[in-house]
Amino acid sequence: MENIQAYLTSNQDRFIKELIEFLSIPSISTAPEHNSDVAYCGNWLKEHLSSIGMKTSTVYATAGHPIVYAEHCEAGPEAPTVLFYGHYDVQPIDPLHLWTNPPFEPTLRDGKIFARGSTDDKGQVFLHCKAIEAMLAVNGTLPINVKMLIEGEEEIGSIHLEHFIREHLDLLSCDTVVVSDTPLYGPGMPSLCYGLRGLCYMEVHVTGPNRDLHSGSYGGSISNPLQALCEIIAKLKDSYGRIAIPGFYDNVKELTDEERLDYSRLPFNAEEFRKGLDVPGLCGEYGYTTLEHISARPTLDVNGIIGGFTGIGAKTVLPSKASAKISMRLVANQDTLDIASKFTSYVEAIAPPTVQVEVENLHGANPVLVEKTGRGMNAAKKALQEAYGREPYFTREGGSIPVCLLFDTILKAPTVLMGFGLQDENAHSPDEHFSLDNFRIGMYASSLFYNYLAE
Amino acid sequence: MENIQAYLTSNQDRFIKELIEFLSIPSISTAPEHNSDVAYCGNWLKEHLSSIGMKTSTVYATAGHPIVYAEHCEAGPEAPTVLFYGHYDVQPIDPLHLWTNPPFEPTLRDGKIFARGSTDDKGQVFLHCKAIEAMLAVNGTLPINVKMLIEGEEEIGSIHLEHFIREHLDLLSCDTVVVSDTPLYGPGMPSLCYGLRGLCYMEVHVTGPNRDLHSGSYGGSISNPLQALCEIIAKLKDSYGRIAIPGFYDNVKELTDEERLDYSRLPFNAEEFRKGLDVPGLCGEYGYTTLEHISARPTLDVNGIIGGFTGIGAKTVLPSKASAKISMRLVANQDTLDIASKFTSYVEAIAPPTVQVEVENLHGANPVLVEKTGRGMNAAKKALQEAYGREPYFTREGGSIPVCLLFDTILKAPTVLMGFGLQDENAHSPDEHFSLDNFRIGMYASSLFYNYLAE
Repeated sequence: MENIQAYLTSNQDRFIKELIEFLSIPSISTAPEHNSDVAYCGNWLKEHLSSIGMKTSTVYATAGHPIVYAEHCEAGPEAPTVLFYGHYDVQPIDPLHLWTNPPFEPTLRDGKIFARGSTDDKGQVFLHCKAIEAMLAVNGTLPINVKMLIEGEEEIGSIHLEHFIREHLDLLSCDTVVVSDTPLYGPGMPSLCYGLRGLCYMEVHVTGPNRDLHSGSYGGSISNPLQALCEIIAKLKDSYGRIAIPGFYDNVKELTDEERLDYSRLPFNAEEFRKGLDVPGLCGEYGYTTLEHISARPTLDVNGIIGGFTGIGAKTVLPSKASAKISMRLVANQDTLDIASKFTSYVEAIAPPTVQVEVENLHGANPVLVEKTGRGMNAAKKALQEAYGREPYFTREGGSIPVCLLFDTILKAPTVLMGFGLQDENAHSPDEHFSLDNFRIGMYASSLFYNYLAE
Repeated sequence: MENIQAYLTSNQDRFIKELIEFLSIPSISTAPEHNSDVAYCGNWLKEHLSSIGMKTSTVYATAGHPIVYAEHCEAGPEAPTVLFYGHYDVQPIDPLHLWTNPPFEPTLRDGKIFARGSTDDKGQVFLHCKAIEAMLAVNGTLPINVKMLIEGEEEIGSIHLEHFIREHLDLLSCDTVVVSDTPLYGPGMPSLCYGLRGLCYMEVHVTGPNRDLHSGSYGGSISNPLQALCEIIAKLKDSYGRIAIPGFYDNVKELTDEERLDYSRLPFNAEEFRKGLDVPGLCGEYGYTTLEHISARPTLDVNGIIGGFTGIGAKTVLPSKASAKISMRLVANQDTLDIASKFTSYVEAIAPPTVQVEVENLHGANPVLVEKTGRGMNAAKKALQEAYGREPYFTREGGSIPVCLLFDTILKAPTVLMGFGLQDENAHSPDEHFSLDNFRIGMYASSLFYNYLAE
């Protein structure tokens, strides 16, 4: 490992030059005018993976943007196989005027590299490439079988990934998946994410009268759909901040005492958190802490309400229709379809009989909770401990990474979420950046991870 | 009167052409981008009033939209003076896609004229113009003194009218005011309105976090402003359909036994009313009938809610802000400022402490209740009886015509509400229209009214 670290150190300047080249390609997947840039970026990556010594490196066309796949599987059938997953597409860049440097002209400043995609996810993909390059350059081979799956549609919902995985089960078969697309718990605080919340995203449509009415001429005699919608929404939570849908918590796997102890040890200052959001107070489900609320407990949020007159000033309309987008974050072992069904039954039951209600399931994903032990998790834990000089925290994330669920259900492989970004690196926002320290430590941690996996 | 009727009949086609021209002007008073259209409309009307023979016709600038004033006061000081009041501004047109013909391309269909402003209030203003034109054309003079005050801000609360009236007390002095901006009780059923509800139009602004957040990363720990808003709105009414604001009913003048008896005699079929609106059921304040709900009792309606993601599909946002437009209809003797203050105190009291709430008073008007007798009321009763061939009903209206209150308190003149619209003519909604029969009968009734007033 000393030789590998020496290689990483002595080639650092070249690595950054290459990363700048990678980050200069405007691979915005959601913008059709950038389709050829996304394709160019996929090809660039394929060539690069060949150049570092991967045995095969291929661009697979999909109905959307291409998928890059490379492998180096020379360690034999007894050695474990790891599938690295990442993405080379990036978010749009607007509002452009808020960027200090142009988003596709990567700039080094204050120990960081500023560019769209630097932390999400090209920088993190690239540090794995460099770790593998170093291992191959120093040892001539890898101690494990490595497969790399890097897609170009993560920022638009990984539309064609599931199909690709199902069509290439043998190609992708593996023992462990590793993903570097989550943040560290904090600067210098490595963490391993073992839980992701699921999602159940519904829309409730309330219909009252068959047309918009004058509230003066009709008000007082019929249910106002906006009022009815508010009454429904107000009944979705009780006074303890719990979700009032019958059976909602039935399958929730409660936090273990050990997990709650771990949570209590995480550095977190609720008052700083509150101040940062500028709210008069925090709230949440009774009996749980704020950290638990945002990552380990199921939640319900109204994401949008549509109805009536929404311009400037006053219009005395009694609207015909109103609707609300309402999403729930789920935790193990809730099932998104079961929750959608319970939500629908409850909303239909509490809706005033004087309006019509329709409930639509917009989309969903099941939660993920993986074991904190196991070969991949243990290797990652040791690698992070050695690279950062401290034991990693085990954390749960409040959001969803739907691909983890694909790996779990289709490939039957657990995912190690070993991220090197930071919460405040402006992923999806202007001035996105990536810490060069974490780039450097990440390369080393990544090579340690592949090494420990072989043990 | 026979000659007048003949004149009205033989000029009917031209009148409709002129009305189409009037209705084609998009005089939407609430939309700043239509300011010049409103001004153009005022000028058009001023010119038209000159052309029919009014002795003076003037556009008065205000701090907002202009006021048109015309008069023909040649009947001498002994003859009564009537002030006609109407408005040439109209409501916004959204949702535009629900209109059969473009709202400012008036179209004749099924004996009706379809256009924004056709029944509220340009069509009704215009029939008075044509009645006066006919009387002047046939007799060369009028039996009474006529003043016409037609404003351009009725749909935004007549913001500058009170100031104008106070500044022009002599100009506007009169014995009776006549307004045609209320509906007939039903097709072929003339009515005289003796009560109008007042209005208190508020906006509630709820602020949560200082920026839109990802509901996955923050959901569950802080109050969602949309959820908080819904909880506030749900508490505005109790389970008896009564408004829950403390003190809201304190000053309400209850219906007399005689009035309730009159109400019970009005032809009204609640089941037909329900079917016409296509709602599963009616509702309203416990202990009162539907007719009483919509005209004689105070009410509260949510007119619009703004907040979060309202596009197609799903976005997992926890919004920073949400707001609701909420209006209350008031009855004698409620006071709009008193109600605004009670509303504000209550909303502030019930708002969750974890959000910030601001309550804004957008505009208001006090209710009106007038005597059913008097010179103007008697002349109108006779005119309607003769034009429609049956005695008019005395009714109360659910909407507000705040200016009636101004005439009562400042000009000390009673207002006759002699309307020719129909309840289902979609005032404020797509496909607003006006019956050509009522346009025709209205012109005749109007000329009879001015004649009987002279007796």
